[in-house]
Amino acid sequence: MSPSSLSPEELSERIGKAEQHYQDLSRRNLQLDMTRGKPSPEQLDLSDTMLSIVDGSNCKGDDGTDYRNYGIGTGIPEAKALFAKFMDVSTDEIIIGGNASLTMMYDAFVGGLLFGMPGSTGPWREQGGIKFICPVPGYDRHFAICERLGFEMINVDMGDDGPDMDAVETLVADDAAIKGIWCVPKYSNPTGATYSDEIAGRLATMKTAAPDFRIFWDNAYTVHHLGDGPDRVANILELCKETGNPDRPLMFGSTSKVTHAGSGVAMMAASVANIKDAAEKLFYSTIGPDKINQLRHVRFFGDLDGLLAHMEKQAASIAPKFSAVDAALEKNLAGKGLATWTKPRGGYFVSVDVLDDCAAEIIDLAGKAGVKLTPAGATFPYGKDPKDSNIRLAPTMPSVYEIEQAMEVFCACVELVCVRKLRESEAPE
Amino acid sequence: MSPSSLSPEELSERIGKAEQHYQDLSRRNLQLDMTRGKPSPEQLDLSDTMLSIVDGSNCKGDDGTDYRNYGIGTGIPEAKALFAKFMDVSTDEIIIGGNASLTMMYDAFVGGLLFGMPGSTGPWREQGGIKFICPVPGYDRHFAICERLGFEMINVDMGDDGPDMDAVETLVADDAAIKGIWCVPKYSNPTGATYSDEIAGRLATMKTAAPDFRIFWDNAYTVHHLGDGPDRVANILELCKETGNPDRPLMFGSTSKVTHAGSGVAMMAASVANIKDAAEKLFYSTIGPDKINQLRHVRFFGDLDGLLAHMEKQAASIAPKFSAVDAALEKNLAGKGLATWTKPRGGYFVSVDVLDDCAAEIIDLAGKAGVKLTPAGATFPYGKDPKDSNIRLAPTMPSVYEIEQAMEVFCACVELVCVRKLRESEAPE
Repeated sequence: MSPSSLSPEELSERIGKAEQHYQDLSRRNLQLDMTRGKPSPEQLDLSDTMLSIVDGSNCKGDDGTDYRNYGIGTGIPEAKALFAKFMDVSTDEIIIGGNASLTMMYDAFVGGLLFGMPGSTGPWREQGGIKFICPVPGYDRHFAICERLGFEMINVDMGDDGPDMDAVETLVADDAAIKGIWCVPKYSNPTGATYSDEIAGRLATMKTAAPDFRIFWDNAYTVHHLGDGPDRVANILELCKETGNPDRPLMFGSTSKVTHAGSGVAMMAASVANIKDAAEKLFYSTIGPDKINQLRHVRFFGDLDGLLAHMEKQAASIAPKFSAVDAALEKNLAGKGLATWTKPRGGYFVSVDVLDDCAAEIIDLAGKAGVKLTPAGATFPYGKDPKDSNIRLAPTMPSVYEIEQAMEVFCACVELVCVRKLRESEAPE
Repeated sequence: MSPSSLSPEELSERIGKAEQHYQDLSRRNLQLDMTRGKPSPEQLDLSDTMLSIVDGSNCKGDDGTDYRNYGIGTGIPEAKALFAKFMDVSTDEIIIGGNASLTMMYDAFVGGLLFGMPGSTGPWREQGGIKFICPVPGYDRHFAICERLGFEMINVDMGDDGPDMDAVETLVADDAAIKGIWCVPKYSNPTGATYSDEIAGRLATMKTAAPDFRIFWDNAYTVHHLGDGPDRVANILELCKETGNPDRPLMFGSTSKVTHAGSGVAMMAASVANIKDAAEKLFYSTIGPDKINQLRHVRFFGDLDGLLAHMEKQAASIAPKFSAVDAALEKNLAGKGLATWTKPRGGYFVSVDVLDDCAAEIIDLAGKAGVKLTPAGATFPYGKDPKDSNIRLAPTMPSVYEIEQAMEVFCACVELVCVRKLRESEAPE
């Protein structure tokens, strides 16, 4: 029964019950945090043997190079070999960096601003009024980079298989100030959507007014499935080569959510021209990445199969948490017409869309009851969700028991705020 | 006997001998490298126990924070406590970063360009025609950053106790486009000079036309003595606080030449205002540094005394190499009027000044005989040594035996090229 079919009296009664339920839950004095996509201690434990896998006796490369010393600005060859397979590129199409792909993305933007990219007519900063396409909802750190560096962000809706390509194609065809688009192609943050081949193909093929348009392809969750093996996603670099746009994509990956989140290995893959350009830019700011940590990763995984086997263990650890989120949503909110939510096959998030103008209040109420959620609006550029309806849930860090408790509070808040909103909207003016 | 007192016949005979000596040495087919300030394998061995000092059982901070996970953008408190002492600042005056202080310096420049610094009237990029003072000879990577980012470099001579402050004071007093000065205050690269208190005081006190003038105080060799304990150098931050210029210095340090060169820990120390500004800038490009590697360093050293004891071992390893360089120079070149050289008490280099217009040819000849030296001009902005007279020797990486061989070649090249030059200069026009 949809709440909108309830009489005013029935609505009031339901709100009364919801308020009572919320008050009861608040008295539990919970302290739970579902704000960020952080791995749990159990997940981190899976990689602990990596910490002591390299010592003084085995810190050299296959060619005898001492990885304790300076040098090798773009990463050790053993790591390039492994992660080239991981990113599905060749070893001259990849740079292995430090511990953060976010740094590599930020540096790519700064490099574009200060020096331009292959295909640029000059540094972006000299072109004025530059813009970037942001599929929404999306990742707050992506949007923060654009805002910080003065890119005007243009929202485009995310669908179940990628961004609204009609909108994207129209935008980029005419406006040379649009320098790129953010994409999280697999298990997107936060919706969990995986890009279809058709959408990847259209991104590779579309005409762009900017000669130096870039797809920032942040494949952060490429092996992060929930038990049924990774989704397949098209190789955007190969598609772009086929369509004569080899320099269009910059692909990013990392092991932050594979091994240890603070001590992983980040990478950028792209055309040889882009890699050469990035390496030239990198020269001025580093003598080389932490090669020992790269070697730890190579030794720990052995090969790509080893990495994929490791991700099966990660999936076994986190799948029950996603199930707990979904079970609570189904039990408490299904069929009520108050919210819809995603059922991701991988990634780190569940995305919930509640009735318009309710998200911020739900998040606020949940916080007051001891359940911290990602701040309202965080999944949109400038922190502004135009409909105030999207909420990101991050279930990996808490235990299943904590998630059950947190979700009880969350669902109670959705019920309370959304039913109140219905009463408001039905009240006589 | 000075060569200039020799007759033309005597000069020719001496050149003939020098040519013969060089030919003999060339036939040894040496392959030696004294180009870069890299630690030797023996030095690196000293830190090998660090590699396995942190494992899954002890990867938490004193407050229970799991350092395997995301977070703590400016470094773990244990590392701040240790390296604040190392840099002689308080724990709120330091950021502990990744593996490269070069990256922190580059990022500081880029941050100034894009956003300005505390005290700036706006981003440096909007001010046009910005400049930087470069004491010469100096560090090529410093100069590369300035050149890359479009700073006009102004040479100022280095003396035995720091840069020519009369020149510096005159320059900065009138020109607001001069945004800062590079300083390697202890065992300077390449001359080995340590700044006197007087010069540090003048740097802290001097009037600068730019309100956001910065001293880039790259204290890369602060504990890197050759056996007699570290030189004392003034605390530039304290001096600048006393003179009302607390935001003037940005101090950099790292363990690249303390533990493992590729896997060390870098740091920036400065006023609280500068640190807050840098942390805000850092937010956009990272979730946090490699905290496990920071913890390794803390566990390995224990405290500052442990670090200093470790540097005694480093000194014992490299001091004989510097002695070998000096012995060769004394034996082959003393009293000849062809070259002068430094006798550093620490650091990584010996700086040799040969007769004008001879350095490039000496380096070229040595290379042809199998001894690679730092490229001519590298110690000057734009790679241009105005007198073509400075040569940097980096003795840490080769063995003492290799250094003896390399120095025999080097001295032979100095003899040959410089005596030839004397003949040229004395030849009738």
